[in-house]
Amino acid sequence: MDLHISEFQEMMRRLYFHRDSNRGIEGTYDWLVEEVGELGDALTKGDKKELEGEFADVFAWLASLANIAGIDLEIVAMNKYGNKCPKCMQSPCQCTF
Amino acid sequence: MDLHISEFQEMMRRLYFHRDSNRGIEGTYDWLVEEVGELGDALTKGDKKELEGEFADVFAWLASLANIAGIDLEIVAMNKYGNKCPKCMQSPCQCTF
Repeated sequence: MDLHISEFQEMMRRLYFHRDSNRGIEGTYDWLVEEVGELGDALTKGDKKELEGEFADVFAWLASLANIAGIDLEIVAMNKYGNKCPKCMQSPCQCTF
Repeated sequence: MDLHISEFQEMMRRLYFHRDSNRGIEGTYDWLVEEVGELGDALTKGDKKELEGEFADVFAWLASLANIAGIDLEIVAMNKYGNKCPKCMQSPCQCTF
């Protein structure tokens, strides 16, 4: 499929920015938390189709929240995790926690 | 930067699969929830650098959890959100909730 992280975030902007910017950061964050809860439920159930949808939902809400918070997910993810663990600076990670 | 979603997920696999697959789905999910909480704190503080790191952390843990759950984030996100809202099937979304 070859979809860049930034392209997905832009897609979420076209779909949801008008709605989520009106709802605001706090309300949109609350929805993200709700979706993370639904992902947790789906992980315990073992229905693959439902699980796929819940992963998609969490990613979509995270991207939409990033849009209204002025964050570029692709840039911040690469800045922190670009080929090394940010804690131990190794790849693979050698942290012991 | 032009990083595909699947490339980021593969990077998280190289960095963390050994650690997170040992921890298991439940334990890794608990860490994701913890990171979502830290993102919530950062959203209220207004420190841009901290906020960028917390968005990166949530995305990284979501990708690592997807790895151990056998989910391809890019595929499931496009299947559900590919250029339309999955609820109203419109772009931009016309949902009223």
